Amino acid sequence: MDTTSLWTVFFSEVTGTGILILLGVGVVANVALPKNFGNGGGWIVIIFGWGLAVFAGVYAAASSGAHLNPAVTVGLLVSGADEYAPGVDVTLGSTLVYFAGELVGAFLGAVLAWAAYRAHYNDPEAAGTQLGTFSTGPAIKSTVDNLVTEAIGTFVLVYIILRFGDTPSEIGPLAVALLVVGIGASLGGPTGYAINPARDLGPRIAHAVLPIRGKGGSNWGYAWVPIVGPIIGAVLAGAFSHVSL
Amino acid sequence: MDTTSLWTVFFSEVTGTGILILLGVGVVANVALPKNFGNGGGWIVIIFGWGLAVFAGVYAAASSGAHLNPAVTVGLLVSGADEYAPGVDVTLGSTLVYFAGELVGAFLGAVLAWAAYRAHYNDPEAAGTQLGTFSTGPAIKSTVDNLVTEAIGTFVLVYIILRFGDTPSEIGPLAVALLVVGIGASLGGPTGYAINPARDLGPRIAHAVLPIRGKGGSNWGYAWVPIVGPIIGAVLAGAFSHVSL
Amino acid sequence: MDTTSLWTVFFSEVTGTGILILLGVGVVANVALPKNFGNGGGWIVIIFGWGLAVFAGVYAAASSGAHLNPAVTVGLLVSGADEYAPGVDVTLGSTLVYFAGELVGAFLGAVLAWAAYRAHYNDPEAAGTQLGTFSTGPAIKSTVDNLVTEAIGTFVLVYIILRFGDTPSEIGPLAVALLVVGIGASLGGPTGYAINPARDLGPRIAHAVLPIRGKGGSNWGYAWVPIVGPIIGAVLAGAFSHVSL
Amino acid sequence: MDTTSLWTVFFSEVTGTGILILLGVGVVANVALPKNFGNGGGWIVIIFGWGLAVFAGVYAAASSGAHLNPAVTVGLLVSGADEYAPGVDVTLGSTLVYFAGELVGAFLGAVLAWAAYRAHYNDPEAAGTQLGTFSTGPAIKSTVDNLVTEAIGTFVLVYIILRFGDTPSEIGPLAVALLVVGIGASLGGPTGYAINPARDLGPRIAHAVLPIRGKGGSNWGYAWVPIVGPIIGAVLAGAFSHVSL
Repeated sequence: MDTTSLWTVFFSEVTGTGILILLGVGVVANVALPKNFGNGGGWIVIIFGWGLAVFAGVYAAASSGAHLNPAVTVGLLVSGADEYAPGVDVTLGSTLVYFAGELVGAFLGAVLAWAAYRAHYNDPEAAGTQLGTFSTGPAIKSTVDNLVTEAIGTFVLVYIILRFGDTPSEIGPLAVALLVVGIGASLGGPTGYAINPARDLGPRIAHAVLPIRGKGGSNWGYAWVPIVGPIIGAVLAGAFSHVSL
Repeated sequence: MDTTSLWTVFFSEVTGTGILILLGVGVVANVALPKNFGNGGGWIVIIFGWGLAVFAGVYAAASSGAHLNPAVTVGLLVSGADEYAPGVDVTLGSTLVYFAGELVGAFLGAVLAWAAYRAHYNDPEAAGTQLGTFSTGPAIKSTVDNLVTEAIGTFVLVYIILRFGDTPSEIGPLAVALLVVGIGASLGGPTGYAINPARDLGPRIAHAVLPIRGKGGSNWGYAWVPIVGPIIGAVLAGAFSHVSL
Repeated sequence: MDTTSLWTVFFSEVTGTGILILLGVGVVANVALPKNFGNGGGWIVIIFGWGLAVFAGVYAAASSGAHLNPAVTVGLLVSGADEYAPGVDVTLGSTLVYFAGELVGAFLGAVLAWAAYRAHYNDPEAAGTQLGTFSTGPAIKSTVDNLVTEAIGTFVLVYIILRFGDTPSEIGPLAVALLVVGIGASLGGPTGYAINPARDLGPRIAHAVLPIRGKGGSNWGYAWVPIVGPIIGAVLAGAFSHVSL
Repeated sequence: MDTTSLWTVFFSEVTGTGILILLGVGVVANVALPKNFGNGGGWIVIIFGWGLAVFAGVYAAASSGAHLNPAVTVGLLVSGADEYAPGVDVTLGSTLVYFAGELVGAFLGAVLAWAAYRAHYNDPEAAGTQLGTFSTGPAIKSTVDNLVTEAIGTFVLVYIILRFGDTPSEIGPLAVALLVVGIGASLGGPTGYAINPARDLGPRIAHAVLPIRGKGGSNWGYAWVPIVGPIIGAVLAGAFSHVSL
């Protein structure tokens, strides 16, 4: 198999994660920001929006195996995989390139979502609610509980992705999309299911730097939870994949 | 075909049923428990949550054919199948191993769901409503009607699973996931569609033993209905598969 | 190809249409009848319930090509197909066997749905609303408009089914299931999308004969509309398939 | 490969775009016009209705590669494709034939949707709201913002379609259907996601010429935005496909 260059990996992950976050931040903006046609559309719109954001992002990042998520990269690393994608060896360098591409993509995707919803973000009725479209936060603040919830959700995501190869099916990117719809339905209640450190941190940085009227703070005190929780879940998933069959 | 050991079967069914029930109990917790982001998300979220819980669980239990449900095991037994999965003969021993794995997995999955939603389970507003996230109960209590409803729902589940092989399609685990979404939409109204004895009994035991503030009783008087009803439906489905083509 | 006997065709269509109508009548009962867990679930539950009812029914009727609908049989006849299914020649006899199987199956499916929801059908709050779970009726009574709506909806159903073979895809029964979800979303508003004479007539007969408390009349004056409208649409679809490529 | 005649292309695009718009205008009519069974069904019904409208339309237009959208045609042109479909060379003539077929089909589809919903369009309660079922309009009028939103949505649509070939999957037309569901969920809030010049212009012409009681004006002042925005997005997607891998 030819080697895929790390520039290609970087560009691919930026593009795929960018589209993931454009559509993911977009669906929350649609449902939560005032005057949108999807305003009040409810949790079912949120979970399908995020799931299909993954669907589109995976097609865009085919060259790099479409991790789109540092937790997936970590899960593959811990599972002992030889390659992150066909032609991409697992090394310290490639690992960092995945992380960088995912974070840069997530930031740029959030900026594009803001551009698509700019007038709604600046609407006076939106004041103080905009952060919730960019980043996650807890429904009930309780650090240990929030970490546990994020770790469990990410465990399911990463473990099932690692198992996909064991069951023949030809639905391709739809499998991970539906998995994400399911995790959102089932485990998204307490913390808004970051289950992806880049998904939370990239848009939080975008919230901090973008010019949004009445946007309030970026809640940096919580920012480490949706990074550490998913990494714990990913490590457990990678380790558990060694003992399962 | 190589023989799959019964330890592998047990471990596989525990893992798959665990993930099924983690996501299945989770979606009801999300929709029903106070302060969750999915609170009030409605029946459409419930049925997709349970259907995609099956989707994820099937990938996790590939090694054992992913029964995840004693009614499926019974249906295969009555249908006269030679194997429960490739390399797993139908014997009294293997049957009991399936049952044990399904029940243990269901219990553990419910414990994980409780861990993910712990703060919400203990919320004062949740008092007395928690059982409904673990186990099923009748909308109108009427034992014969409730048994009939569970038997019909399980008949559809098991009979269509037994027929899957007759129609070529490459969607894999998605087929049973969508079947479960459909049964939830169409036959879940009166009893909350257990259609799986382990799905109901495992979480009911978890409810009984877990420390949950203000949790109330575990309604053991109803517990036999979602065991007996599904088994009746599964036996009928297995028998009907002999006469259908 | 071996010949499939007409008894097999009959039995297959009875089973498949029975499961279609069990799940289809069931979802309306769940959403519309009092005290159900899916009560108030809305149009999205209705359209996925009916679409996945088709999904399950198609698996059950694999032996006969899963028409499940006299309009599909008529569309194939007018399109000039040689066979209704592999091994089933198009003859007057086979055509009548399809019609009979579809109608008997629809009646039996409605009886099973009633059995699953019996306590809810007899609930005093349900009085006078039960017919809407069995058969269709117009939102605005206007005979020509209602016929046009049913004809257009059935045209789309039958024409796209006749075109399925032209586009490679491996999703199997899911294709027609999603087509029915789409027709329900888009063309179900004015008449409740019978788009299938058996789907309407079989359950209407069931409503007329079943013992349901406070059930009211069966609206026989409208019963011909969801038979004639779909047949017009099916004939047009079969004819149009000759000129399209 | 044999050459497909331009008459075939025209006829195919008319049929496919006609079915797309019949179902697409239909779902908005169902949700928005008074007395429909789907009235008040919400954004989730709208986005699945439009997505499955694409699903059906793609099957109907298999002979011409199912563009159904001038933005897709433009994207392929800019991407440097050799053929618009197997046997259809990229020329000025074929490009104009696609545009014409798409626009004529969109007009005819809107007329059919009106026929299916005629009694509801003429209902006195519908007065002044009918345009919203035919064409798009901005939730917050802001020309630059509206153009940006339409350009971003169309970029995602066209770019991902151009990338479909890079990821193996056998789900066929379902892929583009789900992509459109996702774009509706995530980017449909500010402008109602035309993302297709024909989808907006064809039905707007239909609104202008059809006899609808109390229909009000056709908002021609906005009509150029859902043409120019999508074309900008399509050009960018075609250009970006050159630099991505």
